[in-house]
Amino acid sequence: MVYVEPDIDYAAMHRECRAKVFAGMKEAGVTSGVALLKGGEPSFRHDTDHEHLFRQESHFFYLFGINEPDLYGLLDFSTGLSHVFIPRLDIDYEIWCGKIVPPSGYAQRYGIDCVHFVDELTEVLKVLGGPIHILSGINSDSKREIVKVDVQSLIDTEVIDAVLYRVMVESRAIKSGLELDLMRYVNNFASKAHINVMQNCKPGLMEFQLESLFLHYASFEGGSRYSAYTCICGCGPNGAVLHYGHAGAPNSGRIKDGDMCLLDMGAEYHCYASDITCSYPSNGKFTQKQKGIYNAVLDALLAVREAVKEGVEWVEMHLLAERMIVKGLVAEGIVLLGDKTLDQVLDLEIGALFFPHGLGHLMGMDTHDVGGYPQGISRHSRPGLSSLRLNRPLKAGMVLTNEPGCYFIEALLVPALDDPVKGPHLNRDLILGDYANFGGVRLEEDLIITVDGCENMTDVPRTVEDIEAVMSGQAWPSPDAATEKLWTRTTIKTQTLVKDGDVIKKSSVTTNVVYTPKV
Amino acid sequence: MVYVEPDIDYAAMHRECRAKVFAGMKEAGVTSGVALLKGGEPSFRHDTDHEHLFRQESHFFYLFGINEPDLYGLLDFSTGLSHVFIPRLDIDYEIWCGKIVPPSGYAQRYGIDCVHFVDELTEVLKVLGGPIHILSGINSDSKREIVKVDVQSLIDTEVIDAVLYRVMVESRAIKSGLELDLMRYVNNFASKAHINVMQNCKPGLMEFQLESLFLHYASFEGGSRYSAYTCICGCGPNGAVLHYGHAGAPNSGRIKDGDMCLLDMGAEYHCYASDITCSYPSNGKFTQKQKGIYNAVLDALLAVREAVKEGVEWVEMHLLAERMIVKGLVAEGIVLLGDKTLDQVLDLEIGALFFPHGLGHLMGMDTHDVGGYPQGISRHSRPGLSSLRLNRPLKAGMVLTNEPGCYFIEALLVPALDDPVKGPHLNRDLILGDYANFGGVRLEEDLIITVDGCENMTDVPRTVEDIEAVMSGQAWPSPDAATEKLWTRTTIKTQTLVKDGDVIKKSSVTTNVVYTPKV
Repeated sequence: MVYVEPDIDYAAMHRECRAKVFAGMKEAGVTSGVALLKGGEPSFRHDTDHEHLFRQESHFFYLFGINEPDLYGLLDFSTGLSHVFIPRLDIDYEIWCGKIVPPSGYAQRYGIDCVHFVDELTEVLKVLGGPIHILSGINSDSKREIVKVDVQSLIDTEVIDAVLYRVMVESRAIKSGLELDLMRYVNNFASKAHINVMQNCKPGLMEFQLESLFLHYASFEGGSRYSAYTCICGCGPNGAVLHYGHAGAPNSGRIKDGDMCLLDMGAEYHCYASDITCSYPSNGKFTQKQKGIYNAVLDALLAVREAVKEGVEWVEMHLLAERMIVKGLVAEGIVLLGDKTLDQVLDLEIGALFFPHGLGHLMGMDTHDVGGYPQGISRHSRPGLSSLRLNRPLKAGMVLTNEPGCYFIEALLVPALDDPVKGPHLNRDLILGDYANFGGVRLEEDLIITVDGCENMTDVPRTVEDIEAVMSGQAWPSPDAATEKLWTRTTIKTQTLVKDGDVIKKSSVTTNVVYTPKV
Repeated sequence: MVYVEPDIDYAAMHRECRAKVFAGMKEAGVTSGVALLKGGEPSFRHDTDHEHLFRQESHFFYLFGINEPDLYGLLDFSTGLSHVFIPRLDIDYEIWCGKIVPPSGYAQRYGIDCVHFVDELTEVLKVLGGPIHILSGINSDSKREIVKVDVQSLIDTEVIDAVLYRVMVESRAIKSGLELDLMRYVNNFASKAHINVMQNCKPGLMEFQLESLFLHYASFEGGSRYSAYTCICGCGPNGAVLHYGHAGAPNSGRIKDGDMCLLDMGAEYHCYASDITCSYPSNGKFTQKQKGIYNAVLDALLAVREAVKEGVEWVEMHLLAERMIVKGLVAEGIVLLGDKTLDQVLDLEIGALFFPHGLGHLMGMDTHDVGGYPQGISRHSRPGLSSLRLNRPLKAGMVLTNEPGCYFIEALLVPALDDPVKGPHLNRDLILGDYANFGGVRLEEDLIITVDGCENMTDVPRTVEDIEAVMSGQAWPSPDAATEKLWTRTTIKTQTLVKDGDVIKKSSVTTNVVYTPKV
């Protein structure tokens, strides 16, 4: 099949992003001066000349859409014009790296109003006049500070670092119609890449071979040259390691017959992420025990998908998911109610022993996208909630992951067995016995929040029946898939699902799948 | 086919590496004190929590073989013992990243004599006593300085930074028997990955799809989770961009019928590189013009492969390759001798117009490996030679690339057409006409230098006939491949091909292919 690039007008999309930031700055009272951003620099393996494949800094890319190093970008609030500054390259660049594109070429290709050389930056700043707004803030996931542009080395003028970051983060947190089109495309081929892995998974393979199948599909079929994050391919007990797959645990296990496989893998395209997790048994047939845990997590996934909409508190969604999971664990006899109700047991913080991570996070240009903690909002201290990367009421146009999970993590469960409060509610025999090497189940999908619900961009088999059918050779999507029995699967043509100020242009029509629960 | 890990004793290999460095330091007069190295730290995308897949700093990995962040390593010259310092991890690590391995586990797995926690480093340094040797030097390819260990923050003692770097670089420049076994393994599956691409290449594909095919094969079949460098997939005119494939030119072209494809792609395994280039027409059939350029480069490749051995000056090899290429260009009528001899035309620096990069470089843990310019040796100024990453007589046990190429680079050729000295020797009509969009041909293989020749680790079709046969469906290697008509292809079982002091243990036997020219 011939690769076809998605029909997305990137220049228009980034123009839309800039318009939102211009509007946000105006709303914050900024009507003069400029915003100055510095793009990413090349990076290397230690002291060697092994250059990492460059990936633009996200704020910069959001505004200007250029994935090349050593650029500056500028928004002029007096005129509403955009400026980009490119390096002045020499013949050596042309020999080693390719034809030099003149400023006019950048302007045309990326829809930038004015393009200059970096060595003209100071002069342009003088002409445009101050003050200069710069990014300054702490990423709420990494806890690390963004590198501030060194304005003083360029010009002596007033620098304001209190406004731009907040405005940009809020702008990025609500996706525009064109951004959503792009994110649907990424999710579409990333979903298919997961299905490709599902169809090829079998005992005897190595975990990294599943990673390789995913990345190859995403790259070959989807044009994704970057991973949104390091693939997590935890099979058997490795599924209980939440961020398995790093260099110290490099997806190097051999998959055994009957292993539960937890595969958290996402492709990135045009700097936009997808983040999808599927879990299934390596041999394609669920055992009763696997079904029990799996369905507890699936219930949580579907309950959240059904409950989310604009205005809902994400913390409530986390607690809802936790409740469904613990309910399932009670049904399996792993959590024991004793003389307590389900709610009383949940109050003992039993849930976070099995589901210690947050239910989901904003997603966009960063997998863990900005905007989860607006100024003044802090983290909860309760286990589980404390891991949430997002703590605010949902808004239409947010994209977030819905990713409940249930794991058998020795480091959490074994100490809890001897805890005088929690211990009596845990089935020691099962936890140390049948489930000790279970690993875990995580189900993750990417949702667009709408005014009255959500759109699920992720299209992979989710019920036990559907997974078993696909793993035994059935195509997906299948018209009589079991999911259809529970949910109405509607193919819709989407446009401007999102309330988003006045800057949205009519987006191009995209075909999508929406689930609504059957009555 | 079930993935089988290569049978290599990594702990023994790194012990061998340490023994070489211990011996080198002794030779340099060091008999007391310690060497202290700091391993790599985690790195992130800008200010986000997107962590790059960690890859150990090469000097550290050479000595200790552990691909995890935040380690220190130490060699004790009084006792000949090795020490590694690991972070003291907490329960959060166990939940997110996996089971905590105790020091004894590291000692056993990696064959390290003593393993401590990082917070014990100062204490251990006090007990062992100074002086402390640290790495200090400038990478001759990147021109960047290695980060020095900050000893002063640990202990107040004498620091010596003048010996260790030089000794380690020389040790790394000559590979041990076990390192060579590993490098043969990497080259073997990387060669097969290239053949896989060759068999699947066709007009209509995107360049990045060839990259994807290569990476998937190397990962799925070879277990390679890292690229040795960013894949260069330049098809048609893009083949003339020497380092095509970077973010600004991301292998995004669609391959046309009849394009010459230049594919420079290397896998990395256990931190050891391969670096292989194949060039062939997208449709599997060479035109006469493509054959002419291709065979000029192939002649250069074979001539160098035949001429190298211990003691040969690499600069001479570059000039030999340049001569073969220009000879071919004369035969094609692209370079015009006029009233001059070939040597006189070469003296006009015509060669570097078509072959502007160096013939090859040392290869090992870094693709452009250390050791190319020992202290006191500087670069030539002549075009072509000035690009050489290696300028010293060859030694048995060196691994280097042999990679002649011929390109039609507008930025070099168009100005030269008007040069009063060079212009008359260039066929303006052909260069601006038939060859303007030719792109380029590069052929690259990885050689182990031996006392009386070399061993070619790279096993891919090289003659026009072999490539056309493989691209039309024939398996490789083929017993009657055309290469066999020119060269005797011997399958040998190799051991200790290398003179390398007294530290080599008997290496495990590996099957390899060696070419010797037919008389």
